[in-house]
Amino acid sequence: MFAPRSVAVLGSVKPGKIGHQLLTQLIAGGFPGRLYAVNPGAEAPAEHPAVQGFASVAAAPETPDLALVAVPAAHAQGVVEECGARGVAAAVVFTSGFGEIGRLAEERALAETARGLGMRLIGPNCAGIMNTRARLFASIEVRALPGRAAFATQSGAVGGAVLALAETRGIGFSKFVSYGNRADVGEVELLDYLAADPDTDLIALYLESLHDGRGFMAAVQRVAARKPVLLIKAGRTSSGLRAAGSHTGSLAGSDRVFETMVRQTGALRVAGIEEMLDLCQGFASLPLPAGDRIAVVTNSGGPGILTSDRAEELGLEIPETSPELRARLAGFLPAQCALANPVDLTVEGTRDNYRRVLEEVLREEYDGAIAINVGTPFLDSRALAEGICEAATRYPRKPVAAVFMAGAMVEPGRARLNEAGIPSFPTGERAAYVLARMREHARHQERPGPKGRHRGAARAVPSGVSPQPLPRSSPILEPEAVEFLERQGFSFPTHDFVTGTGELEAAVGRLGLPLVMKVVSPQILHKSDAGGVALGLGSPERVQQAFRDMTERFSGQGFQGVMLYRQLSAGVELIAGLKQDPDFGPVVLAGSGGVLAELLDDVALRIAPFDRGEALVMLSELKAFRLLEGFRGQPPRDIGAAAELLAALSRLGLAYPQIRELDLNPVFVFEEGAVIADVRIISQPGL
Amino acid sequence: MFAPRSVAVLGSVKPGKIGHQLLTQLIAGGFPGRLYAVNPGAEAPAEHPAVQGFASVAAAPETPDLALVAVPAAHAQGVVEECGARGVAAAVVFTSGFGEIGRLAEERALAETARGLGMRLIGPNCAGIMNTRARLFASIEVRALPGRAAFATQSGAVGGAVLALAETRGIGFSKFVSYGNRADVGEVELLDYLAADPDTDLIALYLESLHDGRGFMAAVQRVAARKPVLLIKAGRTSSGLRAAGSHTGSLAGSDRVFETMVRQTGALRVAGIEEMLDLCQGFASLPLPAGDRIAVVTNSGGPGILTSDRAEELGLEIPETSPELRARLAGFLPAQCALANPVDLTVEGTRDNYRRVLEEVLREEYDGAIAINVGTPFLDSRALAEGICEAATRYPRKPVAAVFMAGAMVEPGRARLNEAGIPSFPTGERAAYVLARMREHARHQERPGPKGRHRGAARAVPSGVSPQPLPRSSPILEPEAVEFLERQGFSFPTHDFVTGTGELEAAVGRLGLPLVMKVVSPQILHKSDAGGVALGLGSPERVQQAFRDMTERFSGQGFQGVMLYRQLSAGVELIAGLKQDPDFGPVVLAGSGGVLAELLDDVALRIAPFDRGEALVMLSELKAFRLLEGFRGQPPRDIGAAAELLAALSRLGLAYPQIRELDLNPVFVFEEGAVIADVRIISQPGL
Repeated sequence: MFAPRSVAVLGSVKPGKIGHQLLTQLIAGGFPGRLYAVNPGAEAPAEHPAVQGFASVAAAPETPDLALVAVPAAHAQGVVEECGARGVAAAVVFTSGFGEIGRLAEERALAETARGLGMRLIGPNCAGIMNTRARLFASIEVRALPGRAAFATQSGAVGGAVLALAETRGIGFSKFVSYGNRADVGEVELLDYLAADPDTDLIALYLESLHDGRGFMAAVQRVAARKPVLLIKAGRTSSGLRAAGSHTGSLAGSDRVFETMVRQTGALRVAGIEEMLDLCQGFASLPLPAGDRIAVVTNSGGPGILTSDRAEELGLEIPETSPELRARLAGFLPAQCALANPVDLTVEGTRDNYRRVLEEVLREEYDGAIAINVGTPFLDSRALAEGICEAATRYPRKPVAAVFMAGAMVEPGRARLNEAGIPSFPTGERAAYVLARMREHARHQERPGPKGRHRGAARAVPSGVSPQPLPRSSPILEPEAVEFLERQGFSFPTHDFVTGTGELEAAVGRLGLPLVMKVVSPQILHKSDAGGVALGLGSPERVQQAFRDMTERFSGQGFQGVMLYRQLSAGVELIAGLKQDPDFGPVVLAGSGGVLAELLDDVALRIAPFDRGEALVMLSELKAFRLLEGFRGQPPRDIGAAAELLAALSRLGLAYPQIRELDLNPVFVFEEGAVIADVRIISQPGL
Repeated sequence: MFAPRSVAVLGSVKPGKIGHQLLTQLIAGGFPGRLYAVNPGAEAPAEHPAVQGFASVAAAPETPDLALVAVPAAHAQGVVEECGARGVAAAVVFTSGFGEIGRLAEERALAETARGLGMRLIGPNCAGIMNTRARLFASIEVRALPGRAAFATQSGAVGGAVLALAETRGIGFSKFVSYGNRADVGEVELLDYLAADPDTDLIALYLESLHDGRGFMAAVQRVAARKPVLLIKAGRTSSGLRAAGSHTGSLAGSDRVFETMVRQTGALRVAGIEEMLDLCQGFASLPLPAGDRIAVVTNSGGPGILTSDRAEELGLEIPETSPELRARLAGFLPAQCALANPVDLTVEGTRDNYRRVLEEVLREEYDGAIAINVGTPFLDSRALAEGICEAATRYPRKPVAAVFMAGAMVEPGRARLNEAGIPSFPTGERAAYVLARMREHARHQERPGPKGRHRGAARAVPSGVSPQPLPRSSPILEPEAVEFLERQGFSFPTHDFVTGTGELEAAVGRLGLPLVMKVVSPQILHKSDAGGVALGLGSPERVQQAFRDMTERFSGQGFQGVMLYRQLSAGVELIAGLKQDPDFGPVVLAGSGGVLAELLDDVALRIAPFDRGEALVMLSELKAFRLLEGFRGQPPRDIGAAAELLAALSRLGLAYPQIRELDLNPVFVFEEGAVIADVRIISQPGL
C-alpha cells in the first residue's frame, strides 16, 4: 500500500479530472515506480509521455501494486472486482457517494468484494495517501514535505487543510492517510501500522466518529506506549456532534467518556489543527523534557513574560535561577541583563550570549529552554540562531524550542534553526504549549506499570466476578438488586425484606434500631418523592406505624412489601455508578455525594475494567477526596474500600453487559469499609 | 504629537544609528511635512537630500512640532531642555538607560523639565509612535498598514513583534504608541486620547505594570463604554510577575484583582498577541453580533465541526436551522448538502450557493455567520469569496467572518475578502473566538445602567459611611471592632464584653442562652487554636466555668475579659472580607463558608465601591449562591441582606484606607438578615 513499485490510476485522466490530477501529483512528486492510466479509452495524459494508457487493469503489462480508484460511484464496484481479479494487493478508493450519503449496502459490498479477492482497501470517499520517503503522493492535496510525523484523518478536507497549513510552516510528514469511510482499513489498523513504521516518530489522528471504541482504545494504549498519539476528536459539543452525524444519544456525556479514554490510554488530545501542527513540530524534533523546569532566554522582556505566564499556567515551572547560576551569568553578561528567569539579554543580546546562557541553564538546573528573539532590522537573526543551535547541539537530550518574531525580518534565523532541526514557533505562548504537552507525554511514559496493556485494557473474563444470574425482572426490585450485589461482594447495611406485619417484630429484633424503611413495588420508581421512604424509625411502634402507612398508601400500586435497613451513622457520602457508553462500553462514575453533588460537577470517570490503583487515582481527582482523607479534624476514611468498590463495579460492568445503568447513591465511606445505602439497576435482559 | 507639520530627529544620523533609521522610515513612509536632523556635526544623511542638518534645535529655520530624541542617555536632559526652550510642543524620547535600570531620578528630572517648559513627552526607553493617516512613522519598527485599531504598548519589543506579525497578516492600525517608561504621557492619557480619535475604532493595550490603578480603571471604564478596549496584561503568574518587575506582594491575588477590574469595566482581556490581532481584525471590520446565534456555512465537514465545537464552548449558539429555513435551502442546494447548521455545501459548493445560503441564514434566524472554504487546487477561491462578499454586503449589520484554508492556494479569495473589508481567519476556531469575544463586548454594552461611570467608579465620599473614628489599637480588639462595625450598620448577634465574674450573671440575663464565649487579649491572635473559644454554653454554670477556665489559661497573656454572644442557629455560611490591593485599592471578597470554603476555591471579588446590584451579581458568581437561593427544600435566604453587607464593606474600604484587612468569617445568612459571627480587622493607623 505505502511502498508500491507500480501504481495504476483508474478513472478519467482528462484535464481537471481527479485521475489527471493524481498522475500529475505522482509525477511532480518524483514517484520512482511505474505508472499506468486505466480508463475505457485507454487514454494517457499527453503531457506525461511516461504514463501508458490501458482500457483495463487486465490489459496492463504487470499487476500494479496499488490501484487508485477515481471512477464514478456506479463503476466503483466493477473496477474493484477487476483489480482484485488481476491480483492487485491494495486500492485507494477516492470515489464518493457511499456510506456518507446513506449508501451503506454499496459500501459494504465494495469492502466484501475486496476482502474476498485478498485486496486491502482505503476509502471510499477519501483524499488519498502519501509516503514522503517513498515519494508516493497518491492524493490531490498539497504534497507533504518529508518529516517524522504521520497524519491520518477521517475527513479529507481536514487533511487538505492540514497539509496546506503545514506546508506554509515548513512542517513535514512521514505518511499521510485520508481513510474516508473506512470500509476496510480503519484507524485501528492504521495506528498499529504507523506504530511499527520506522519513519514515523509520532502519530496524529483526526476523528469524527469511532467504528469500534474498545478496539480503538486498546490500539491507542498499545501505540501510545511507544509513540506519542495526538487525537483531534471533532464533535465536542452538541452542534459539533450533530454535524459529525453522531447518533450516540447522550451528547455531553459522550465527549466526557472520550476524554476519559484519552486519559486512560496516555494519548494527547488537541483541540485544533494549529495546536496539532505545533505538537508535530515539537515531538518530531525535540527530546522529551525529563522534568518540569524550563528556562526562558529572551532579548526582550514582554514576550518573555507572556511565555512564562503561559508555561506556568500549563503546569511547567519557570523557577528562578539559583544564586550560583546567577553569579556565573553575571560573570559574562552586561549589567542591563535580567538574570532571574526569564533571562533577558536585552536587544543587545549576541550570538555568544545566547549560546553561553543556554549552555549554563541547560547544564544542570533546567530540563529545557525556550529561546526568544524579537527581531529588529538591526539584528542579524541568523547569528542569534547560530548561538541557539550551538547550545542545543551541546545538550541534545534537553529540548530547546525557539521563537523568532516576527515576519520576514527573522526569516534567515528561522531558516538556520530549521537546518539544525530546532523548531521555531510564532509566539512564545505556543512554544510553552508544546513543551507542556511533551512533558505531559513524558510523565505518562514515566508512570509505573506495564505500558500498552494497562489501565482499562479489556480482559475477556474479569476476575473477581461471581457468575450469578442477573435478576430478570424489569425494573429490578430493590431486594433482588441488593441480593445480587451482596453475592458479588458489595456491602450493605444489615437488612430484611418484609412482606407482612407478622414479620416485623422478628426483623426489628434481628436488625436493631433505628431503621430505615423503603417501599418495594415495580410501579414506584421515585420512592422518596412518592413518600415511600421512612427514616429514623427509633422504636418498634414507629416501625409498625410506618409499615401500616405504606401498606395503605401503596395498595393498588403493586405493593410487595418493604426493605428494612439498619440506619447508618453518616460517613463521607459518595455516588458511584455504571453506564454503558455506546462507543466504549461500561463506564464507571464516582462523585461527591450529598450537598456537594448538587453544587459541584464533581465527577470522575473510568472506562472498565480498571484496578484498585487506578480507582485510587480516580478518587483523588474528586474535590471530595479531601473529605475522605480526613478533613477539619475528622478521621481519615477507608479510601481503599471505596477504591475496591469502584474497581469491582468496573468488573461487574464488563461481565454483565445487560446492566444498562447502575446507581449507588449514596455510598457511605466510614473509617472502616464502604457501605451502599441505596441502589438502582436498569437492565436490558435481552442482551 | 500625532499630526506634526515638522519633525526634528535629534541624535546621530550615521548609517546604523537610530536617528538614521528614523529619518529613513519617515521618508519611506511618505511623511508629508518637513524633516530636520539635529546633531553636533549638523549632519544630514547623504541619501536624503530633502533633510537639512543643524547643530541645534535653535538653529533650525522653524520650531519643529515634534522632536524625536535618540541621543545617548547622558545628553537626553540637555536635548530636552533645548527643545523646550525653542518651544517644541512634543517629544518622543527613544533613549534608554533611565527608570528601567533604576535611574529614576534622571527620569523624573527629564519629565519635570519637559513639564516646566510646556512640552509633552513620550518615553523614555520607547520604540516611537505612528499615525498611519498622517503618514507619520516615527519609529524604527515595521511600518504599520493603515487600519482602524490603535495599539499602545508599554514594551517596545512587544510593539515591534505585533507590528511585524500584523504586517504578515495584512492587519492595519490607526495609531501605534510605544510609551516605554511613561515619565510623562501614560496609558490613562493615551486611552482618553484614543477614545476621542475619529480614526480609531478600538484600542489594544499591552501592559506590564500600572502607574495609577484606580485612575487606569476609571479611564478604561470611560473608554470601554465607547470603544472596545483589549488588554494584554503580562505577569499572570508568579514567574511572569517576577519578570515584569512587580513588587506588589500577593502574587496570585494580584492577577485576580486585575481580572476583576477587567470584568467591572467591560474591557476585554486577551492572553496573547495572536488573539489580540484576531480581535483587532474583527472589531475593526465587523458589526457587533446582536445575539448569540451563529450559522456556520462550509464546503467541508471537518473544519465546520471544529468551528462549531469551539463556538459553543465559548458561549455562542450554533442552533439547528428551522424546518422552514431547511426547506428553503433544500429548494436550491444539491442533495448531498447538510442543511442543519453547520450547513455543508460540500466541495461542490459554488459562489452562488455561498451567497444564497448566507443570505438565507442572515435574513432572520441568525445573528452572524462564519463562512469556511477549504480550498483544493480545483476551486476558484476568488469566486467563492465573491459569493460571501455579496451576502455580507446585503446584510451589513450582521457580522460575517470568513475562513479560507490554507496557504497560497486560497490567496486570491483572501485578497478579494480583504478588498471588501471582510476579515478572514486562518482557522474556524479563531473566527469563532473573535465572534464570541465581540458578542461579549456587545453584551456588556447592552447591560442597563449608565456607561462610563458605573460599577467601581470611585466617588470621593462614599455614601452610607458614618464618620466614626477607627479604633487606634493594634491589633484592634474584638469588642472595639464589633462596636465600630455596629455603628456602621453591620449586624452581630446580641453580645456583651465581660471583664469579671461579677458581670456574668447580668450578661446571661440580658443575652439568654446558649452562649458563645471568646477570649479578648491583644496577645491571642488565633483564639480557637489557643482554646480561647467556648461554644454551646447552655447554662449559667457552664458560662461561669468557661470564664474561670479562660481567666486561668490566659492570665499573664494580656487577658482583658471575654466577648459573650448569643449563639446562632446556623444559617448559610459565607465569608466576606476587605483587602487593600496595591494597584486598585480596596477590594471586597465574598466566598463560600464552612466546609465548602476549604474544598473549593469559591470566591468572587469586586473593586470598591459598588452598589447592591453589583453585589448581587457578585454573589451569583459563587457556587454557594445555590445554597442562598434555597436548596433541597431549604427556604431561600436573605440574599439582599448579604448583598447590602458587601456593598457596605466596599464603602467602608474607601472611607478607611487604614484598614489593611478585614475578615468577616463566618457571616450567617438567615431567612431574614445577615449576621456576622466573627470579625478580625488589621489596620495601619499611620494612614
